[in-house]
Parts: sequence; C-alpha cells; structure tokens
Amino acid sequence: MLLHLSTWSEIEQFLKRSRTIVVPIGSNEQHGPTGLLGTDWLCPEIIARESEKSADILVAPTFNIGMAQHHLGFPGTISLRPSTFIAAIGDWTRSLVVHGFEKILFLNGHGGNVSSIDAAFSELYAEASFARRRAGFALKLCNWWDLAGVGELARDQFPTGHGAHATPSEIAITQYALPDSVKSADYAPPIAPSGPIREALDFRARFPDGRIGSDPGLATREKGRALVELAAQSLVRELEAFGREPMPD
Amino acid sequence: MLLHLSTWSEIEQFLKRSRTIVVPIGSNEQHGPTGLLGTDWLCPEIIARESEKSADILVAPTFNIGMAQHHLGFPGTISLRPSTFIAAIGDWTRSLVVHGFEKILFLNGHGGNVSSIDAAFSELYAEASFARRRAGFALKLCNWWDLAGVGELARDQFPTGHGAHATPSEIAITQYALPDSVKSADYAPPIAPSGPIREALDFRARFPDGRIGSDPGLATREKGRALVELAAQSLVRELEAFGREPMPD
Amino acid sequence: MLLHLSTWSEIEQFLKRSRTIVVPIGSNEQHGPTGLLGTDWLCPEIIARESEKSADILVAPTFNIGMAQHHLGFPGTISLRPSTFIAAIGDWTRSLVVHGFEKILFLNGHGGNVSSIDAAFSELYAEASFARRRAGFALKLCNWWDLAGVGELARDQFPTGHGAHATPSEIAITQYALPDSVKSADYAPPIAPSGPIREALDFRARFPDGRIGSDPGLATREKGRALVELAAQSLVRELEAFGREPMPD
Amino acid sequence: MLLHLSTWSEIEQFLKRSRTIVVPIGSNEQHGPTGLLGTDWLCPEIIARESEKSADILVAPTFNIGMAQHHLGFPGTISLRPSTFIAAIGDWTRSLVVHGFEKILFLNGHGGNVSSIDAAFSELYAEASFARRRAGFALKLCNWWDLAGVGELARDQFPTGHGAHATPSEIAITQYALPDSVKSADYAPPIAPSGPIREALDFRARFPDGRIGSDPGLATREKGRALVELAAQSLVRELEAFGREPMPD
Amino acid sequence: MLLHLSTWSEIEQFLKRSRTIVVPIGSNEQHGPTGLLGTDWLCPEIIARESEKSADILVAPTFNIGMAQHHLGFPGTISLRPSTFIAAIGDWTRSLVVHGFEKILFLNGHGGNVSSIDAAFSELYAEASFARRRAGFALKLCNWWDLAGVGELARDQFPTGHGAHATPSEIAITQYALPDSVKSADYAPPIAPSGPIREALDFRARFPDGRIGSDPGLATREKGRALVELAAQSLVRELEAFGREPMPD
Amino acid sequence: MLLHLSTWSEIEQFLKRSRTIVVPIGSNEQHGPTGLLGTDWLCPEIIARESEKSADILVAPTFNIGMAQHHLGFPGTISLRPSTFIAAIGDWTRSLVVHGFEKILFLNGHGGNVSSIDAAFSELYAEASFARRRAGFALKLCNWWDLAGVGELARDQFPTGHGAHATPSEIAITQYALPDSVKSADYAPPIAPSGPIREALDFRARFPDGRIGSDPGLATREKGRALVELAAQSLVRELEAFGREPMPD
Repeated sequence: MLLHLSTWSEIEQFLKRSRTIVVPIGSNEQHGPTGLLGTDWLCPEIIARESEKSADILVAPTFNIGMAQHHLGFPGTISLRPSTFIAAIGDWTRSLVVHGFEKILFLNGHGGNVSSIDAAFSELYAEASFARRRAGFALKLCNWWDLAGVGELARDQFPTGHGAHATPSEIAITQYALPDSVKSADYAPPIAPSGPIREALDFRARFPDGRIGSDPGLATREKGRALVELAAQSLVRELEAFGREPMPD
Repeated sequence: MLLHLSTWSEIEQFLKRSRTIVVPIGSNEQHGPTGLLGTDWLCPEIIARESEKSADILVAPTFNIGMAQHHLGFPGTISLRPSTFIAAIGDWTRSLVVHGFEKILFLNGHGGNVSSIDAAFSELYAEASFARRRAGFALKLCNWWDLAGVGELARDQFPTGHGAHATPSEIAITQYALPDSVKSADYAPPIAPSGPIREALDFRARFPDGRIGSDPGLATREKGRALVELAAQSLVRELEAFGREPMPD
Repeated sequence: MLLHLSTWSEIEQFLKRSRTIVVPIGSNEQHGPTGLLGTDWLCPEIIARESEKSADILVAPTFNIGMAQHHLGFPGTISLRPSTFIAAIGDWTRSLVVHGFEKILFLNGHGGNVSSIDAAFSELYAEASFARRRAGFALKLCNWWDLAGVGELARDQFPTGHGAHATPSEIAITQYALPDSVKSADYAPPIAPSGPIREALDFRARFPDGRIGSDPGLATREKGRALVELAAQSLVRELEAFGREPMPD
Repeated sequence: MLLHLSTWSEIEQFLKRSRTIVVPIGSNEQHGPTGLLGTDWLCPEIIARESEKSADILVAPTFNIGMAQHHLGFPGTISLRPSTFIAAIGDWTRSLVVHGFEKILFLNGHGGNVSSIDAAFSELYAEASFARRRAGFALKLCNWWDLAGVGELARDQFPTGHGAHATPSEIAITQYALPDSVKSADYAPPIAPSGPIREALDFRARFPDGRIGSDPGLATREKGRALVELAAQSLVRELEAFGREPMPD
Repeated sequence: MLLHLSTWSEIEQFLKRSRTIVVPIGSNEQHGPTGLLGTDWLCPEIIARESEKSADILVAPTFNIGMAQHHLGFPGTISLRPSTFIAAIGDWTRSLVVHGFEKILFLNGHGGNVSSIDAAFSELYAEASFARRRAGFALKLCNWWDLAGVGELARDQFPTGHGAHATPSEIAITQYALPDSVKSADYAPPIAPSGPIREALDFRARFPDGRIGSDPGLATREKGRALVELAAQSLVRELEAFGREPMPD
Repeated sequence: MLLHLSTWSEIEQFLKRSRTIVVPIGSNEQHGPTGLLGTDWLCPEIIARESEKSADILVAPTFNIGMAQHHLGFPGTISLRPSTFIAAIGDWTRSLVVHGFEKILFLNGHGGNVSSIDAAFSELYAEASFARRRAGFALKLCNWWDLAGVGELARDQFPTGHGAHATPSEIAITQYALPDSVKSADYAPPIAPSGPIREALDFRARFPDGRIGSDPGLATREKGRALVELAAQSLVRELEAFGREPMPD
C-alpha cells in the first residue's frame, strides 16, 4: 500500500495486520552532468514502490530533502541543516508512533544523510532513556545499496568507475524508472576525482562537475532494472525480518 | 521544468532566464472516509505540474508534510510541529536563495499550513530586518483555491456541502489525476459538522469521520479536471506577475 | 479584576468561579506620523480594562511586544522573531494552565501577530496530540476589530481611508484613552499606499511614513470612545460564551 | 519620554541627542498575602516613569514577565523559562540596536531575573565575540534596590523584617503609586521563613504564604514615596554616567 | 571515589549509601601572562580530588568548558554560549538523576559561569514546576572560594592584589598541584586594571594582558597548598550537610 | 603542548608555527563489569598526550561527555543528547577558529559518537555553505582504532572476543595508563552477546552486564602499552598530513 493513496480507515485496517512501515528518504541535490537532482530520493521511492507491487507492505510518502549542504554550490540542490533534519525526522517518527507503528524502516538513498539520520534516531531514543521508560518503537536505517545482494550486483555491473556520488548504479535506476528523463553529456575526465567533503565552495572546487570518483556513462536502463528488481525483493525480506523482531515490554 | 528531473546545469541555464520558482506545499493527513491521505500535497503538485506542461516555469519537489497536529487522531496523518515546519521552510528557502532564486511562490494545499508558512516567511525576513539589510528575495504564499477564478468555480460546482476539510473540490482533483485511487463510502451525515480546531483528540471527538462541513460525495472527475485546468492557467499568470515585480536594491 | 493588581489568593478565589482569562496582546511598533508606538498593545489593554469595569472578568498583564519585524526600519519598533514569540506565548499559556485556567482568550491588537499566535497555539496543542492526550485547555485568538459589531462600526465611521496600518480606528482609541498623547501632522498623501509586506527596508521604501492605506487624520476622540465602549461590551459576551463551552474529558 | 507614547519620528529625534534607553524589567508573580502579582514589574516602571518626569531620558515599554518558575505554585504567577527569557531579551535588544541605541540599561525589579538577564547579555555579546567584531552596544543590569542610596534607605526604613521576597520596600512602592490597590492581611508568623529556592512545589511547601524572610506589614505609602523619589534621582544619574561612557571603535 | 575510574557496578553500590555527587565545573580561558588556560577547571578538580582522598564522596568527571565569551580575544580560550552551556548542564544533570542521584553539587571555578549555571538550574526546575510535580533532585552551586573559610584565608594571604581574574589564589592552587607548569613573567602594571565585562574585543582592549585587578606574582606553592587543604575539608562538610537535607515527597 | 597547561601567549606563539590542534573526545559510560566509566575519553586522552611527549603538537582539553543515551540504564553513564552534543562541538570549534586554528582533528574514543560528531561538522560547514563563503577551517574525525596500523594490531592481539563495546583493546589501554585502577570480575558468558542498539532499557535487557560481543578478560597492560605507542606515532603522522593539506582561498 502507498500511504498517501490510502484513506485513514485503510491505514487503520493495515495496523491490525502489521505495525511496520517503510519511509523512503533521500536528498535533492546535484548528481553530476547527467544525474537528476532528485536521484537520491527517487531511487528509494522507486524501489519501495516496486516492492509494494507484490507484497503487503506500507510505503510512507517520500522524505525528499536531506542533508546536502556540501552540494549547495550547484544550482537546484536543496538542503536541510542537520539540526533541522533531526527535528523533522523526529516529528515524522512521533506521528507514526501515535498511530501504533512500532517498526519504522528508513530506506535511504543518500550517503550524506546517514550520520544525521542516525543522530535523529538517538535523539528520539534519548527521550525514553532520560525518562527511564521503553521507547515502544524500533527504528532502522537501511541504505538501498546495502540491501541483501545489491552491493554485490553493483560491483559486478560496474567493476570500475562506480565511485561515491553520481554513481552509475543510481543513475541506472532513474534511467530505468524515468526513461523520458535520461540525459547525456561528455564526462571529462571519465572517472571523477575523490577527496574529503567539506563546505559547498570547497566541494565545487574539488569536484568541478559534481561527480565523486564515478563514471555515470556506464549506466544503462537494463542494469537499472536488475538493481531495482533485486533491491525490491530484498526490501520485502528486510521488512519481514524487522517486523518479526519481538518488541520487549 | 520539474526541478527534480533536471540536472544542475539545466537549472543553471534556467536561472539565466528567470529567478522565479514554485514550491508545491501541503500536508499528509486524513481526508475523511474517501479522501486520500496525500490529498493536500497532491493537489498543488498536480496543479503545478499541469502548469509546467505549457509554460516555462520551474517546479520544485513537493514539500509533502505540513502542520497537521489536529489530524493526528486519525491513522496515517504525519505532522510537523510549527517550530519544525518553520525551520524546514527556512532551509528550503535559504537553499534556493543560494542559487539566485529571488521569487519563491509556495503553492499551498492545506489551510492549516497558512499560519506556520506565514510565520516562516517572517522568520526569514527578520534575519534581514535585524541586520539592517535587504533580504534579496521575495516570498509569496498562494493557496490553490485562491488562484484567480478557482474559488468561484468551486462555489459554482458545489453551492452546498463544500465545507472546510475533505472538500469535494480537493477530492475531485485527486479523482481526476489519480483515477485508480478513487474510493467510495457512505457519508453519515451527508454534510459533516463544523466547529473549532484544537488538539487531536478533541478534533476526532468533534469530527468523527474526519470531514469538516463537507460532502465529498459531490466530487466528480470531470469537476476535478475543470478545477485543475483553470488553476494551472491561473498559476502561470500568477508566477509571471510575481516574476515581473521589481526587486528593489 | 486586573491580575497584576491582585494577590495570589484573590486569583485563587477567582478560579473557584471561573476558569477563563483574557490576555491583551499587541505590538510596539511605528504607527505612522501621529500614531503612538504602543498603539497595538494599548488598544486591547484599553478595551479589556474597560470591560473589566463592569463585569467579573480577569485581565492578564499585557503582552506588549509582538511580531513586527517589518517595522524595524522605523525607530522605536521592538519585535520578537516568530520563533521567540511562539516560545513566549507558550510559557505564558503553560503558566496559566498550571493554575487551572482552561479558557485563555488572547485579545489581539496587531494584524501581524495573527499567524505567529496561531502557530503558537498549534505548537501548544501538538504537545497533547503527539502524546495522545487531551490538552485540558482551549485557546482563542480574537482581534479587537473582529469583536461583534466593531468592524461594522469602524466601517461606518471611516467609509474611506481606514486602510490596514495606522488606521483611524486604532488612532481614535488611543486618542480617547490617552488625551495627553494626541499628536498631529500633515499627511502626504492623505491616504497612504498599499502593497506587500516583506522585510524592514523594503517596507520603509514602500511606505515612507509608515502608514498602509490609511488616513489617520479621520480619527477623533469621540469615535474612539464609541469603539471602546462597543468593543468592551462585545468582549464580555465573547468571554462568557467561551467560558460556557464544555471542556470534553 | 515614554517610548510607547511617542511616534517613530519623535524617537528619531531623540536618537540625535542620546543613544541611551532604560528598559523596566520585572516579573509577574505572587508576592505574599498582600503584595500585588505585578509588584516586580510595577516597581521599576514606577521608578523609571518618575525619573522621566524631570529628565530627558527615554523609557521603553515594561518587560513584564520574567523568570519566576519557583512561584508557579501560587495562582497568578506567569513565568518564562530561562531559555525563552534569554531569547526574548535578545530580540528586544537587537531591535533597539537596529535603531542606533548603544547603551541599554535594564532596570530590574526581580532578584530571580538576575542570572537569566546576565546570561542573556553574554549570549548577545557572544555573537560579536565569536565573529571577532565589536558588539557596538553596551548592556547594563541595574536592580532598583542597588541604585545609589536606595539600599541604605531601605535598611534604615526596615532594620528588621525586610527579607528577600515580598519585602516591605517593594510593597511600599506599589502602595505609594497605586493607593487603590493596597491590600491587608494578618501575617503569621510576622517574619516569614528563609531557605533554598528550588522548584515550585518545594517552594510552596517551604514558604506557605509566599513570603521569604519578610514582614510586609511594615510598608507604608510614605516610605514608598521616599524610595521612589530617591531611586528616580539615582536612576537619572546612573543613565547619565552610562551614557557618557565612551564606546570604543 | 572518582566516577570515571569506577565501574558501573561500583557506582551502583555507592548509590546504596549516598545519593550525593560533586561535579567540578570551570572554564578553559586565558589567565593572564602566567596563569594556565585550564586554571578554572583545574582548581575545582584539584580540590574535589583532594577531598576524595579522605572521605567517601563521589567526584564526577570535570565539566571543563564554561561560559567565557569575553576571553575569546586571547588564544586558547574555549567557550560555550550560555544557551549551549544550559543545555549541556541539563543533560549532565538528567543523566545523573536517571541513576538516582538526588543531590548534585557543582563545585565551580569560574565567576563568569555563575549566572549561566544558575539559569541552567532554573531551566531544569521549571520542567517540574510547569508539570506541577516535584523535581526529585536538588542542585547546589558552590564556588570553591566560597567554601567555608576559604575566602577569609585568601584575603589573609593576599590583602592587596587579589583582584577578580587571574587571581593569586587560583594561580597558587595550580602551582601547588602542577609544579612542572609554573610560569613566570613581568607584570606591568603589577596590579591589573578593573572595569566592566562585555564582548571579547572590548575585554582585550580594557585588560591588555588578561588580568582583572590582580597581581598573580603574589602566588606561592605553599599558599596554594593551604588553600587546597582547607577547601578540601570544607567541601567534605558541605557535601555532608547537603546530603543530609531531607528530600520532601 | 597541552593547551590547558599553557598560557595564552604560549598558544599565540604556537599559532605562528602551526594552525593544527587535536581534541580528544569520548564518552563517560559503562564499560562492562571491569571497564572504567571514563574509558572512552581516557583512551584518546592517553594517546594524544603520549604523542605530545615527542612531537610539537597541541592537545586541547578532553571533551569527556558524548552521545551515550543507550548506556543510561547503567549507573555512572553521563550523556548528551545529539542536539546538545552538536551545539557544544559547534562552540568548541568556533572558539578555536576565532584564534586562527584551521585544522581541527577530533580524536575519538566512542563509536556511538561518530554520527553526532559528523552531523556537528555538517552543521558547522552549512553556515558557510548557506552564506556562499568558504568555511576557513577543516575538520577531521579520527577514531583512535582507525589510526594507521592500530586496528591491525588489535586484531592480532585479540583474534576472538574483541567485540564492539568494552573491548579488550580499550580496557588494555586504560590498564596500561592507570595501573591503580585495574578491576577484575568473572565474565559470564566469556564473550558477550551482540544485537541492535536502541534506548537504554532495551540495551540493558539485551546486554545485561554492559558488554557487546567482547571478552575484556583478554586485556593486558603490555598489550595496552603496544597499542598506545603505535597509536601515538600514527597520530603524529596523521596530524602532520592534515596540517600540510592546503587551505583553498
């Protein structure tokens, strides 16, 4: 089920058979000469909605703006500061917990989000810890490229030139799902440089076209299809396992 | 152009011909027995994307979670507190301003957002006012039902039973755009009660099925189509007028 | 009763017969060539204290600084940012609730406060909504010009030149109550311009003498007296009706 | 001059001859069996307005709610948390600095405010210190009982039974200025107990009628007059000396 | 016991015989030509650890960074803003309260910390006061120079030239405890000037070598030994008395 | 050099030859039946001070309280919430930057700190990114176990039973540096369980004696010595390399 296309009574019914929900979360940020600005929130949305076609899972609306301060030197990037991001993840989570959700899996599409999401989880858990009570919910962060088998598949598909940002695997996924939005460009150099990530002007000076260590030209729609299908299957199993974990009293 | 389906260099190009952007903003909240939880962010997204088909405007990703604390008594509602909402609107705006956007129009789909969005604007302007400098940008809040002619059309379509929440006009828009997600139910009473809006439990006690003063059964896909087409045309003119306003030095 | 001129045991007694209180709230900001900087907090204070002369109501101290960032280009204006305003309204409200007040009516004198006060209410209600409990109190925002009959009277008194800031109705009220502080000036043009409200420098450029759409020269003490007397009577009835509303369990 | 009874252009004129302003600041809190809830903000307001009658000084509106969490066990007390108080003092100060005020003296009427006001000053200065720039303004906290000669006079007037809260000196000041609001009660014991100040329930258990170490029955209107007149003269000199301090570049 | 050199089960045992803990708290800031940057956190740490050698008290890790914004003009100073300081003291306190500590004494080494620590206490107590419940813990701020007899001893040791910052008493304590880190310099003038404390650049202009009113050249290791020994004894008695105070229900 | 044992003028001199500083950062939290509560801040402090003996590096005071909310079920743990931690790291960093430090390396001793420290870095960089300017400083997070060669050595020393919390490597380091504080206990089971980390009560239920996957009984002082000496050498090289990195304009 897609939560945003459901009524409140349909969700009420769903909660009688499951307390688990997946929240696609990403970022809206530059992805090199050909990557879509929405790549990092589109990928988890695409995968989660693919999963939903064949399994009784519930997919929340997509959390589409993340922590991308280092990309602000490139037009179109929209970023939350970590403190804002933590506050917003907190309110999303608290809302879902009000309804009785106990297992909330954030399917993440942006490496730069990981620390802030993890900090947000600790901020939420700390409310219970400082109050000497149980939280009553469990949170899990899962990057789509860490779903079972997906990293291996990407390494097989792109033995060189995968890199860390504007990777051919994420480009391939958007090419597969959004065939009308495939862009092309010459990449110079073919494989982008690597280096530390600091503030936005430093980033743009180090990575002039936005890529980090990647050759997006290796992406194909067919590889994207294989990634999405595998990731979608793995996500279903991940949610099932997470949902089965007992919640202690 | 849809920002999330563009590359950063396409946005860089767009900024050479326009400094204006529209951000669809809404809420994910219960909409009565048949309304979709996503109604309030889907409506402005649908209208803005309809506008984009025929005009050279730029549409940001949709800000899909708003201020809906009073709906938290109904499963599926996700809400930010006003303070979080203000912080997040602030970071969205600051990000766009970094790139050179000067006119940012928030096309809103949720009445409950209006005060917090307006407060967010003041919070942003205050940074300039306390620093004795120009802001360098102008913000506009526009509810889709306040676009030129749209309110009149809705009143013609629904002379009675329009109400204030889960209205037949917003239901009609989602029916038109998402024909696979049309739900049905018996409404009892046909027109829902009205009253003050306070916290979530109070709200659910006053408005047992979630509607306020409305009869969503009056919605039809055809009425939705008429609303979307008119709103889309009005939005284009609104953006043009906003874009033409001179920015003082 | 005026709370600040009472002892704590007098308030303890009052709470045995009523759980309702009115808080005059306004702003300290420029009001054109002749308006007092305190106009927006003086007006609700004047009206509430007039009501108190003939009815058993309780008037809190005046919340005298509001959201006036756009007026900071004119000397003497003092403003809170919306986030500070929301925090302060929160602590005022929480304090009153500690004592058992259940109905808190904010009698407002500044249009620019409305959104932030409303956001503050939602911030307070959200504490209950996220905790799945009743708030135990009800908040009401009432602008003095929206009290029963008052807007109609002002329109009768000032069929043209009323405008939106430094209006002849609010000037008249301060003239009536503070006859030693009546100022005079030539207004050029007689009716001030209108336009959007943004940050302080933009505001001062658009509205060079501070007025928006108004001709304060139309104010007279006698018209002020009529406004105060009507508003004071309406406020008493408003408080009675609010106090009678049942608080659900 | 009273700022709130002036126009913006009168303040503009004042700033050509002085950059100094006094802000009466206090608290609205229980003051024992006979003390007014407004005592702590009325006293500095009374003194500052007395000063203003004979000297060309500028008096801001009164900051009437302070840090009184420990008094919340007594009806009528309204308190800000320290964090809210610091934010609000910050916005008041920043507003005044926008207009060119360089010397801001807070005339305080509540001992419990001192730490939070001092912390607020440091919070404001820290903005400059972290930015390696001058603040451009100087802040001074002055309790009215610390004005030159005032403490000595109070000790002469009340050699025993002065105490620390609901003192006869502050009661006397309100009796002098507000003769219609003089209350009476039997005090048992005549001199109230002393002890540490913690949270509100602890406070009420230690100090059952709200007084700390004081015998308010010693207050007279005549003693109040003497205190106000001396304090008003001392305040004028304090402001003159503060205003003369050079502001370094 | 030193908490940081204990295991959790040793603390669990300690809590069976005492609910009291001492937290050394200070600042890392310039201390004139010869004072160590750590002086203000070293002094309470030295005293508390001396106490711990002969009494069954529990010493927490040292809170080593305080409110020192005014010293930021001198290299090596590290400061928290008051708002950050208040938040951090809050989390330290809440953590200790989780474990069952009821009496928390902050042994302070920096005058500039006093207001912010006191504000932090009020912020913590206010949580209980606004919730109409007991706090369940008591907080005490004690400057080491205010321990019984210590101020008198320092006045005897340094009848002139003690001053307010980089005092010979605190220098003497670090000389005694850290004989390998004794520095020397010529002081010009021998006794430093005094004046108001504002932001960092103002401070450095007023106090060119960092001292306020002091002659640190008067310090000797022997005087430091006497101060530490007396202070350590007084601290033990202070903790015993604090621990014996009944906690009301 | 140890910053806290230096004078401000010694730091001023140091800044003429280096702009680099190392900040030991850790946590004060339970470390199983025998581990010291201070283990996680002692380890980086021990290593950094060992480095300082033989190289011209500058060591800041130790940031001794980190993000340990999940350990609050065990007495003696003191934790900051992530939001407080981020604020405090921010103020430490801003203070050092005021003095001209450009390279700040946080030598970390607690895995649970990593996300919040990284989020704090992004929060700091975002100030520059949103302002379209260079940060002027670079931040690096380095866990002591990730220093060159150290992880390999630990794996050689403890091929089984190293685990993730209360590891024999960190226990060994404190045994080496603090021989008077070596504790002993029977471990049952010898190797502790593993599992997810959530709030404090959940943690204590999963990990009854506090260890995660480790056998601290494998620790010896000699292994600790080897770890400290290697880590200290690697830290010097890490700081040299970091210091040599060019700072772009």
